[in-house]
Formats: sequence, structure tokens, C-alpha cells
Amino acid sequence: MTKKALAIDVGGTKIYSAVIDENGVIISDIEKNPTPKTFAEIKSLFETIINKHEKDVDVIAFSTCGAVNNENNHILGSTGNIAKGYPDMPFKELSQKPVFVENDANCAAWAEYKIGASKGSKVSVMLTLGTGVGGGIIIDNQLLKGQNGAAGEMHFKMYSDKRRKCTCGSWDCFEIYASGKGLKITAEEVSHNPDITTYDVIEGVQNNDRQMIEIFDKWQNDITNGIIGLSNIFDPDCVVLSGSMAQFVDTQKIQDNANKEIITTPVEVKKAVAGNYSGMIGAALLTFEKGAI
Amino acid sequence: MTKKALAIDVGGTKIYSAVIDENGVIISDIEKNPTPKTFAEIKSLFETIINKHEKDVDVIAFSTCGAVNNENNHILGSTGNIAKGYPDMPFKELSQKPVFVENDANCAAWAEYKIGASKGSKVSVMLTLGTGVGGGIIIDNQLLKGQNGAAGEMHFKMYSDKRRKCTCGSWDCFEIYASGKGLKITAEEVSHNPDITTYDVIEGVQNNDRQMIEIFDKWQNDITNGIIGLSNIFDPDCVVLSGSMAQFVDTQKIQDNANKEIITTPVEVKKAVAGNYSGMIGAALLTFEKGAI
Repeated sequence: MTKKALAIDVGGTKIYSAVIDENGVIISDIEKNPTPKTFAEIKSLFETIINKHEKDVDVIAFSTCGAVNNENNHILGSTGNIAKGYPDMPFKELSQKPVFVENDANCAAWAEYKIGASKGSKVSVMLTLGTGVGGGIIIDNQLLKGQNGAAGEMHFKMYSDKRRKCTCGSWDCFEIYASGKGLKITAEEVSHNPDITTYDVIEGVQNNDRQMIEIFDKWQNDITNGIIGLSNIFDPDCVVLSGSMAQFVDTQKIQDNANKEIITTPVEVKKAVAGNYSGMIGAALLTFEKGAI
Repeated sequence: MTKKALAIDVGGTKIYSAVIDENGVIISDIEKNPTPKTFAEIKSLFETIINKHEKDVDVIAFSTCGAVNNENNHILGSTGNIAKGYPDMPFKELSQKPVFVENDANCAAWAEYKIGASKGSKVSVMLTLGTGVGGGIIIDNQLLKGQNGAAGEMHFKMYSDKRRKCTCGSWDCFEIYASGKGLKITAEEVSHNPDITTYDVIEGVQNNDRQMIEIFDKWQNDITNGIIGLSNIFDPDCVVLSGSMAQFVDTQKIQDNANKEIITTPVEVKKAVAGNYSGMIGAALLTFEKGAI
């Protein structure tokens, strides 16, 4: 009989859950809840979801914001805009069944690698372009986790002379240029309009507005520059772009421009195809493959 | 009986060779030759060295400039200031004994990992600060090689607005800031003296010259900025600095400043200890461990 996972995707604003089989197919309704404001309410929501499905599944698979340790049972440090105590969530104690936890960008990267855009890739880098930028790197069938599990943070500098403060507290990280927030800041800088939105830019590009095209090209060029550096470091065969902002980019243009400067070997740049629930799918597939705690 | 390798380290200006045992100990004289100007002369020198030692060793281990493929028998593309045809060297045909080839920065990183500064490290990044910058990354007892073997190129951008042309043809790569050449360019920019040398800077720092200290600090800060980005990407436990320029840096200061900005987990920054022949030692140890072709 095929194994089943209850997958729970925990973001700063929404918590998704569904039952997923060994092929990465969602075989239940997808439940969506707003992320509660406090640790206790989040824990209580997890318990409600788990109680409902626990008897029907083999494992509980969490895809979560925040870096996750190498034992896949604990969150390391801060996780941005979610309840302060959330990193202390005792995931293991939430269920009688085995529980497995991994970072959401890593889970989404794994979903693309198993059933999506980077399927069968030897070395792939996934960049999740949303409000921030997430990273998931897979080398020879292993997620790059690092000494403690926190690897894949896309905070390398695009400038060395302190131009933009990053959300991480440092300056000029890739995230604060290549993210949706980065696009807004670039738009503000170019247009001198503090109220301009990313939506204004996207709409302007569609309407052939010259300044909006200039802003968008600047942003896309920042993404390209980051991909050049990552490609020289990893020599990947595939770079996958996912997240809410990825739909707008021209992957062919990024690929062509990046390959003009990459000195290792040419890379393919692709959009993610595993969909909005790739975090849940990747968490389930990782759990089946790596074994749950 | 302990195995022995004939190790040959091929650089743009010198070719070293020696017999090395399984413990990484050099058990013969070290032979030093200037690197010949042509492909034929280089090949002929290899043959002379190999003929002399072949009968006494189990394998031939090359540490070479240039990226090396994943099969460890062929150089990928350009290798800077060595004879143009050198990448086509038929390494395998040079000996009856098995021949193993790896990039010199990777070999040096492996030597540090097996017997040096990063011994026992889970994830280590080595930066070879010489005329250029080499990189060797080891994750869970494996060299990071990438899709074709070219990974570890330290060409990620320090600026995104085309300030310095890099030796790779692109702009503003880490190499053109953190290398000895980078220090010279920084010195030229600050002092407005086109004839200033890295030696002038180092001597000036020792004599407490304010401008030379400013130049050196700028250079060291560039190295630090690169280490911050690499640490956020890899979450390494150890960054090792090697190469002719590494002797001058203040690793404690770099470590302290980097850890103020790193958002993964703190890293140790150390100087290499395996010495000038770490390329040969690493090539030999890699050959024993990974098996020769």
C-alpha cells in the first residue's frame, strides 16, 4: 500500500495542509487557515489538523518558514513575521506518528527536483522570489544544509558600499534587490515616487511605459547578477525561479545574459512548475525519502 | 605496505613533484621546475618526472591549474597563464599506473580538510588568496564539483555597477577585489599612484602608514564581505584562507566582522597550515581516497 503524509505548510500569513501520497499527489482537500498570532494558537491549530488526519497517514511533514536543523525536528532562530515563540514549537510532540520538518524553500526545491522543473538535475539552485528571497540547493540528491541546517540563505552582497539596508540587518544582500520588496525599492529609487508599488511596475511594463520597463530591467538584471555568482560557485545544470514574483521574469533573457558571464559551464534557467503547494509536496516527498524522526 | 603516489603540482610558473605516502607525508626530495612555455615541453617534463618515479609508486596524482572534470582525467577549458594547448593534455596516457587529476585549489582544500586547518570539518570553504583567488568547498566529505567539475569559482559580484574589469572578462568579481591583484588595484585607486605594489602596502602597514592601513583595511573588508555571502550560502563551520596573500590577513578580525553579519551560524576563519605543498599532498590523499582512473 502506498504511504501517505499529512503535509503542513507554515508561512507568515497562511497555513496550508493536505494529505499527499508517495508520488507527490495531493489526495485530500487542501485546508487553508490564516496563521494565528500567538504560539499557543498556532500549536492548537497544528493539533486540530493533526487530530483530524493522523490515523490516515504514516507521517507528518512540515514545510515551514525559518531554517530547520539537520535533525529535521527543530527551527533554528528567527523566522520573520510569525509569532515570536514559534521557533520553539515542539514538533515531535504534536503527533504519535513520526514528524519531519524542513524549511519551506528547501521543500519547494525538493518538489521541483523530484517532480518539477529540475527533475533529475545533478546540481540545482532554486530561488524563491517572493516578498523576500528563499534558496534551496540540491547537490547529488542531497539538500545543501550546512553545519547546522541553515544553508541556502540568499544574503550575499550585490554592492559593498552600504546602499540598501536588508531585512536581515546587514546591507545590500541579494534578497533586498531580487525580491518583490527589492523591486519596490528599485522603483522608488528610479521614479522618486515613494508610493509606487510592484503592481504599478508590472502593469507599466505591460503598457510599455518606458520608466517602468527601466525599473523592471534593473530588477531582472539584479536577479541575473546573483545567478551568475551562484553558477560560478555551484556549476549547476539548472536554476529554478519560483515564488509569486517569478511569473513576471523572462527566464530566457536571464539565462542568455547569465551565460555570457558564467565561467564554469552554461546553466538553464527555468520557472518552477510544481505549483503553489510545492512546499507541502516537497515536505511529503522528503519525508518519504529521508525517513521521519 | 603503505601506498605511494607521485604527486605533480602544475602551476603557471612552477611545476613541483614529489612522492607522497598515504598519511600525506612527502617521502622523496621535492623537485621544482619552471613551467615550460609549450604543450610539448610540458608533456615531455611530465614524462621525465613520471619515468623516474613510476616504478616506485601506485598512482600518479596531478594537482593542476584549471577546472578538472568529474571523471578526474581532463581539464575543462582555459587555465590562464599556461601554454594554450595544456587543457588537452592526455593525462591518462602519461603512465601505465593509474592517473588522477584535480584542480589545485580543490587539492589544497582537501589537504587542509584531511590533515590541516579544517580537519574533520562538516562543511568548509577554502579561499586561496594569490595573484587570483581559488576556491575549494568540501561538504560532508565530498568536494563540491558541480555538473561538470568546474564549481568553486570565486567569481560572484562585489558591485553591480561595473567598476573593475575582472580577469575572467566579467566585472567586479570577488577575485578582482580579494586577490593580490585586487589589493594592488585598491592601492592604485586610493593612492592615485599607478606604480604602487602590494609590497608597498604590506610594508606601509608594518610601518604604521595611515594610507597604507586604509588600503589594507579596504582589501580585508572585501575579503570579509565575500566570506559573509559564502557563509550564508553554505553555513560552513570553517573558512580557511591559503595562498601567498593569506599570511598578511588578520583572521580574528575577519572572523569577528563576518560573524556580525552572517545570519546562518557563526563561522571560524583560519589560516591554512598544510604548507606550500598542500596541492601535492591533497592530490595524493584524494587519489588514495577516491581511487584513481
